[in-house]
Amino acid sequence: MEDQSSKPIRCKAAVCRAAGEPLAIEEIVVDPPRAYEIRIKIVCTTLCHTDITFWQAKVAPAFPRILGHEAYGVVESVGEHVEGFAAGDAVVPTLLSQCDHCPSCASEHNNLCSSVPITLAPGMRRDGTTRFRDAQGNPLHNLLAVSSFSEYTVVDVTQVVKVDPAIPPKIACLLGCGAGTGVGAAWRLAKVEPGSSVAIFGLGSVGLAVAQGAKMCGASKIIGVDLNPEKEKVGEAFGVTDFVNPTQIDKSSVSEVISEMTGGGVDYSFECVGLPSVMTDAFRSTRTGNGKTIILGLGNQTDLLCVPALELLFGKCLIGSALGGIKPKTDIPILAEKCMSRELELDGLVTHEVGLREINTAFDLLLQGKSLRCIIWMDK
Amino acid sequence: MEDQSSKPIRCKAAVCRAAGEPLAIEEIVVDPPRAYEIRIKIVCTTLCHTDITFWQAKVAPAFPRILGHEAYGVVESVGEHVEGFAAGDAVVPTLLSQCDHCPSCASEHNNLCSSVPITLAPGMRRDGTTRFRDAQGNPLHNLLAVSSFSEYTVVDVTQVVKVDPAIPPKIACLLGCGAGTGVGAAWRLAKVEPGSSVAIFGLGSVGLAVAQGAKMCGASKIIGVDLNPEKEKVGEAFGVTDFVNPTQIDKSSVSEVISEMTGGGVDYSFECVGLPSVMTDAFRSTRTGNGKTIILGLGNQTDLLCVPALELLFGKCLIGSALGGIKPKTDIPILAEKCMSRELELDGLVTHEVGLREINTAFDLLLQGKSLRCIIWMDK
Ligand SMILES: [Zn+2]
Ligand SMILES: [Zn+2]
Ligand SMILES: [Zn+2]
Ligand SMILES: [Zn+2]
Repeated sequence: MEDQSSKPIRCKAAVCRAAGEPLAIEEIVVDPPRAYEIRIKIVCTTLCHTDITFWQAKVAPAFPRILGHEAYGVVESVGEHVEGFAAGDAVVPTLLSQCDHCPSCASEHNNLCSSVPITLAPGMRRDGTTRFRDAQGNPLHNLLAVSSFSEYTVVDVTQVVKVDPAIPPKIACLLGCGAGTGVGAAWRLAKVEPGSSVAIFGLGSVGLAVAQGAKMCGASKIIGVDLNPEKEKVGEAFGVTDFVNPTQIDKSSVSEVISEMTGGGVDYSFECVGLPSVMTDAFRSTRTGNGKTIILGLGNQTDLLCVPALELLFGKCLIGSALGGIKPKTDIPILAEKCMSRELELDGLVTHEVGLREINTAFDLLLQGKSLRCIIWMDK
Repeated sequence: MEDQSSKPIRCKAAVCRAAGEPLAIEEIVVDPPRAYEIRIKIVCTTLCHTDITFWQAKVAPAFPRILGHEAYGVVESVGEHVEGFAAGDAVVPTLLSQCDHCPSCASEHNNLCSSVPITLAPGMRRDGTTRFRDAQGNPLHNLLAVSSFSEYTVVDVTQVVKVDPAIPPKIACLLGCGAGTGVGAAWRLAKVEPGSSVAIFGLGSVGLAVAQGAKMCGASKIIGVDLNPEKEKVGEAFGVTDFVNPTQIDKSSVSEVISEMTGGGVDYSFECVGLPSVMTDAFRSTRTGNGKTIILGLGNQTDLLCVPALELLFGKCLIGSALGGIKPKTDIPILAEKCMSRELELDGLVTHEVGLREINTAFDLLLQGKSLRCIIWMDK
């Protein structure tokens, strides 16, 4: 191990040289893991809207950069002070840390580790540096300290989750962000109760995972809201019981339609789009007394979320979270189990599969709304 | 009982004839209680900022009107179908109903009864009518279906809480709204944990009651924020451990000061002013990961509360409530007990006492920020 881990690895990666430009497949160098770091051989990865947000430089721009943060892989080598991991372990890297020692990790209401805090800065969490260099030796920024659009990457030990190697790689890779966020938001954050009503704004991967999570928790009415009429059928497969297309309503607002469908509003409303106006709609669609609105969509860095203050005073609540409130090391293995036992059915999220060389196809598909998740296989 | 309850009562009341005008002491007629209603002889009442908000016609204007919604009294007579109350019972009327049968009352997370829902409309909850007429026989609107600025009033049975007659009337009367809201917000809504940090924006009666509630829950740092330097000393008596005057800071914002004082922000932040800009400050003063902001202040009907969406996504939460999340019939008797055992010290909220004829003095004192609660005694 010592020897191997001390050597840089030459491999292929998809590099984003400038905002909005197609990624370039380049040969790069991945440095060995430093203390508390793990070098992972990525098996497969996917593209998430958050990658698009950073690719478009809407949030914390930094280029050249290796994007990607939903993946599944195998431990290649570990740095000093890494315990509990060995080469060959099946792992899912995540954007959130879990040290299990700090007050935040100790609290059941907090999934933002304070000893290795998440930042949007383009470097490793502990020292801000990068383990990536291009062929010319110039540093390449990383993304959320994961950067999975590379055959190899280095991730902090607090951000690596060991999973059952029996789980299909492409399902495991969904749990690291989008699907974990969606299911987690219903299960851990909103704590959806049996018999309750739910509205989901935006039936992309996160929204559909919310539907699966809400179904798993026993919600009896799951209303999907999307501008794309094809999502009605897609939603059904994930547990959506009712569909509202905001362009085809006879009321003045979606919230009025939902209020009528539910006798006063839903118990839980999930915003999975990242648009301030949709966040307000989601809020207004919840019932007075105890309506909870969960914000999951990431928009522009300076977006303001505005709601009528008086409506909040009538017992409503707005909750935001990273990763749907799940604690990665605690909850991703549980979700993996639920996928294997078919309590959670996430397979339908995988609509396309490509090899690393075709990664720009994955971007096109997601931007055109043609894919949910496109799995990018490293060995193809 | 039959005979007595069937007769209208002539008595004195403070009538608000037009927005912002001094109240007029008039002889009025209070009709007998109808089914599910209780006629109460008010012993004492107080003036709350919510009365001012309606008096200024900022919310749901309707005149002429009898204001007042924090009071203590004795049951005079009961209407048909009223069970569990008899003439002579010591009671606190409240703006919230609790029927104890509907799904909202059955839920532990909801204090907005759905069978007799709160409205801002100026009538009785069940039929929208009023029990008040002036000397000319013209109807007088009520306020929040309480209207305690009258020697007698009629209130729905779901809005009347029986209390231990041993509690001092002026303390009981505080619990019906302001103090109940403040203590409840810390105790029931935020569920303040021992050792946690709290910021309170606005050290009026509600804010000071939040401080007492937070202290009762074991908070170790209770930061008071107020523009009035005299509130530093006042706050201390209620458990405030640190004071910030926004006009006397060397940082660009209060939230920066609080973040520095607490190593990243408070666990719980309470807005007790009702200004959108202060709501945003309160939100920004909470820590990422699990910071909770509780909105208690009522401003203008159309006020928008705006927060940075990205900050919400880092695990923050915004909660609104009526009456601090307490269920009146369940919780006010508990709070009354805590007052009698001195676990809660609310006596300091009573800064002035007047008779009904001097009620406009109570308005002047509150508007000038000279009083916390001015008790208005009916028999003086
Ligand atoms: Zn931690
Ligand atoms: Zn993602
Ligand atoms: Zn009820
Ligand atoms: Zn009040």
